[in-house]
Amino acid sequence: MPQPDHVMALPLSETPDLDPEMAALFDKCVEKLGFVPNVLQAYSLRPKKLRNFAMHYNELMLGESGLSKLEREMIAVVVSSANHCYYCLVAHGQAVRKLSGDPELGEMLAMNYRAAPLEPRQRAMLDFAWKMTKEPWTMGEPDRQALRDAGFSDADIFDIADTAGFYNMSNRVASAVDMMPNREYHKLDR
Amino acid sequence: MPQPDHVMALPLSETPDLDPEMAALFDKCVEKLGFVPNVLQAYSLRPKKLRNFAMHYNELMLGESGLSKLEREMIAVVVSSANHCYYCLVAHGQAVRKLSGDPELGEMLAMNYRAAPLEPRQRAMLDFAWKMTKEPWTMGEPDRQALRDAGFSDADIFDIADTAGFYNMSNRVASAVDMMPNREYHKLDR
Amino acid sequence: MPQPDHVMALPLSETPDLDPEMAALFDKCVEKLGFVPNVLQAYSLRPKKLRNFAMHYNELMLGESGLSKLEREMIAVVVSSANHCYYCLVAHGQAVRKLSGDPELGEMLAMNYRAAPLEPRQRAMLDFAWKMTKEPWTMGEPDRQALRDAGFSDADIFDIADTAGFYNMSNRVASAVDMMPNREYHKLDR
Amino acid sequence: MPQPDHVMALPLSETPDLDPEMAALFDKCVEKLGFVPNVLQAYSLRPKKLRNFAMHYNELMLGESGLSKLEREMIAVVVSSANHCYYCLVAHGQAVRKLSGDPELGEMLAMNYRAAPLEPRQRAMLDFAWKMTKEPWTMGEPDRQALRDAGFSDADIFDIADTAGFYNMSNRVASAVDMMPNREYHKLDR
Amino acid sequence: MPQPDHVMALPLSETPDLDPEMAALFDKCVEKLGFVPNVLQAYSLRPKKLRNFAMHYNELMLGESGLSKLEREMIAVVVSSANHCYYCLVAHGQAVRKLSGDPELGEMLAMNYRAAPLEPRQRAMLDFAWKMTKEPWTMGEPDRQALRDAGFSDADIFDIADTAGFYNMSNRVASAVDMMPNREYHKLDR
Amino acid sequence: MPQPDHVMALPLSETPDLDPEMAALFDKCVEKLGFVPNVLQAYSLRPKKLRNFAMHYNELMLGESGLSKLEREMIAVVVSSANHCYYCLVAHGQAVRKLSGDPELGEMLAMNYRAAPLEPRQRAMLDFAWKMTKEPWTMGEPDRQALRDAGFSDADIFDIADTAGFYNMSNRVASAVDMMPNREYHKLDR
Repeated sequence: MPQPDHVMALPLSETPDLDPEMAALFDKCVEKLGFVPNVLQAYSLRPKKLRNFAMHYNELMLGESGLSKLEREMIAVVVSSANHCYYCLVAHGQAVRKLSGDPELGEMLAMNYRAAPLEPRQRAMLDFAWKMTKEPWTMGEPDRQALRDAGFSDADIFDIADTAGFYNMSNRVASAVDMMPNREYHKLDR
Repeated sequence: MPQPDHVMALPLSETPDLDPEMAALFDKCVEKLGFVPNVLQAYSLRPKKLRNFAMHYNELMLGESGLSKLEREMIAVVVSSANHCYYCLVAHGQAVRKLSGDPELGEMLAMNYRAAPLEPRQRAMLDFAWKMTKEPWTMGEPDRQALRDAGFSDADIFDIADTAGFYNMSNRVASAVDMMPNREYHKLDR
Repeated sequence: MPQPDHVMALPLSETPDLDPEMAALFDKCVEKLGFVPNVLQAYSLRPKKLRNFAMHYNELMLGESGLSKLEREMIAVVVSSANHCYYCLVAHGQAVRKLSGDPELGEMLAMNYRAAPLEPRQRAMLDFAWKMTKEPWTMGEPDRQALRDAGFSDADIFDIADTAGFYNMSNRVASAVDMMPNREYHKLDR
Repeated sequence: MPQPDHVMALPLSETPDLDPEMAALFDKCVEKLGFVPNVLQAYSLRPKKLRNFAMHYNELMLGESGLSKLEREMIAVVVSSANHCYYCLVAHGQAVRKLSGDPELGEMLAMNYRAAPLEPRQRAMLDFAWKMTKEPWTMGEPDRQALRDAGFSDADIFDIADTAGFYNMSNRVASAVDMMPNREYHKLDR
Repeated sequence: MPQPDHVMALPLSETPDLDPEMAALFDKCVEKLGFVPNVLQAYSLRPKKLRNFAMHYNELMLGESGLSKLEREMIAVVVSSANHCYYCLVAHGQAVRKLSGDPELGEMLAMNYRAAPLEPRQRAMLDFAWKMTKEPWTMGEPDRQALRDAGFSDADIFDIADTAGFYNMSNRVASAVDMMPNREYHKLDR
Repeated sequence: MPQPDHVMALPLSETPDLDPEMAALFDKCVEKLGFVPNVLQAYSLRPKKLRNFAMHYNELMLGESGLSKLEREMIAVVVSSANHCYYCLVAHGQAVRKLSGDPELGEMLAMNYRAAPLEPRQRAMLDFAWKMTKEPWTMGEPDRQALRDAGFSDADIFDIADTAGFYNMSNRVASAVDMMPNREYHKLDR
């Protein structure tokens, strides 16, 4: 009963119309990771959306920010845990394992971040991300103040909100079209 | 007790570092709408994110798709209703009023889309968007099949998922940083 | 795709058996508002219930109370927002617009009252009404004390509870029989 | 640790200003039941509201309807179970025991109506009342049709909705002001 | 419409294969209570499970503990109230009535424990049990500290958790196989 | 930031009073697994409860049943996923990996079982377990019939209910006292 080998439940184009920049991105993924992440393959059904998704993602996760790359991946995993998103838990769980060098941390965040021995800064960040995910209509000044009290700047707060927001998008797209993560993630950084 | 006049609860840069393309976008907004939407002003706190948000948004809402522009706005409003997002309900409620020429339709979608006399195609689309928003982990093949039965193609299903996903992101960012919609929206297309 | 023109999803009596007092009430509505609110027309299916509903309503919303008429309408809108009741959001949203002279306030309360720049007194009142609506079994002395701390008397607390309770009734009746608000409300007091 | 002996958590007037009709109602309660139900004593804090509540209640529960008095009490108990309302479960649980002559039925409805061996008509009625209580925004034509299929007329459907609505009001008022049921109910009709 | 007379919705073995110790337990139940509790009869479908259930139960509810037997029954009832479990509310509601000598306390705990005039110790214990039942993933050190502040030892905290856990099991088994409580419980200790 | 090395948040006895049979069980665990599972160490705070837990567990998971051992572990993981229980997801996720020889299956069940390519029998079993966990009060004959339609016997249905029930207990105890799984689980059977 191995993982299904589809990229998503909708059929892909056999000849996706990738522009040179996206083709280069795919090549770079193969070179660096050994595979093209299925989320990119899925978005290639709609090539213009692929480009936007990829650029949005790269800046979010790799651009300059007061949040470390690990912290951004931690948010990704915790939001995906709240949304039970298989694709994102597998892909970003691996990223947490890799960036932290701590395989158990990836498991804790995927299963219940409250079990992890987090510093107050990170606990505050993840509490904010969880609440934004579950009951966004209740967010208010006290929630932002809790982040300031934990040492985050206003730009950091924006980035926390933006990152948690992004995975509330990608979790839902992945679940709605049944994206499968590449099987390679499972064995990495255990 | 008028609407607060902040753009969001976090302070904006007084001299946002807009590149020429974004500066042109802001000018175009003023020309066409009479104002720069506050979501763009808020993202100008992080100019690279602004560009990605704007490009992502434009393709999503204005690019080619089997979904009409009105249908995409209908999804925006219904997702925002499920998430009680003030910013997006005001801005996209106005868009539904304008594109449909039917002010009451905007109200019905913002308040409870089940009250609207929708065609089966649109009801199916909005049921899918609501479920994706509230319980994304339960999505499955029967949900996609219901869209196919209502006449949607696989690419349309991808676009429905992507659109509903996007507003689950922007609703949460807006709520988390308390974005206020520009007051101009309120009076338009009543 | 205009709003359906039914009063409710159940057929009305063609010759409702209104007693003289109720007939006078209907006439007075036409004179003052230009129409008979559909909730009254719906209740005319059961004329004795109509009388009780009307008397109950009039005392609640217009009788003497430590709550202003606007505050009572604010509670009506916030409860209806929690319950996604189209009928009541339209009818009482208009009342908030009219009584406050602030069209945006009506929108904020209908969409997410936490976005509104409320005084502490009114925020406390609406927090109480929201909690009563969503999780009535958790209400306790701390909730009542929060109202006292915000300046409400015990009789005011009773009136807040009674008003929030009433709209939890009318929201559900309206939703269960698909009452449509009179279309006239939409354009008023924008 | 007996039940608290307050009528509600708010102080009552020591000299409630009852009009002659309400004073007569209180006398009649004492004569027939041996006590004045605490909900009436609580409402005497606001005498005009008391009158409306009493008249509304009497027509609802005792007036002509296609629903038997027992069926109306069954709805009262099931709604109160969904809302965990102590006052109403005690008072209307007793009413079900009395009207049905079946003490266990009262317990089943108060605890979980799905455990009761109900006829399809009554199961349909209670499923409708439960759903109206928990997720009123989802009510639609299929819910009404299920009642018609179970033999209910349109006027009956109105009465089911109205009855379930009423207890969603009274449950919340009782919980918000901590009304205690008269202790006499507990021992009756066991 | 009396309570159904089945033990559970699954057929029992006509000749359950009880070992001598379990047969003796059944005899002892008849002697002491006048009947064999249906939960034991239901488990006799799987005799080895019956033995484990019975031993687990006896130690939990009757063994040495810093919690009184009444307190353990109070937890049983409150968890069962959160889970709307008919079987356990009937059986353990009777136990609370008997052990407390206070029939109203049994009703309050079954319907809404927040209505009961509890000492802080017991309120803290039941708040912990309710939260564990509804949102176990949110439990943390502040919840345990609240119990310590109310006077509980660490071993007591373990016992509270264990007791609340047990009824989350038995409630679900009872609901899943539709166990009916023995009718004798209803009349006892009123 | 490795996993905390406590067994649980409550202090253990330094000299737990294990009877010979339990001491032998601990020795056997060390021999077979290389460690004593922390859940057993935690229960050794209350040695009589330890014995009952261990016997209950062994029969449930290893005794005769129409459910395979893998199927019982699948239920354990899916219930624990619904309850976000870190301890049980780690320990039973490993068991699924081992018994199935399919590491990805363990991940899918821990994250969202609906992503797994299950046979109808197992999907029905897990749908039942999820529903029992989330809304036990709604279980009814149609849920049992769905299991029969998928080929389960009545005794199997009892075992499914009993197994799902058990993990609703152990998940809550583990979360309430913050049990940490032994770190050895993480690396096994990847």
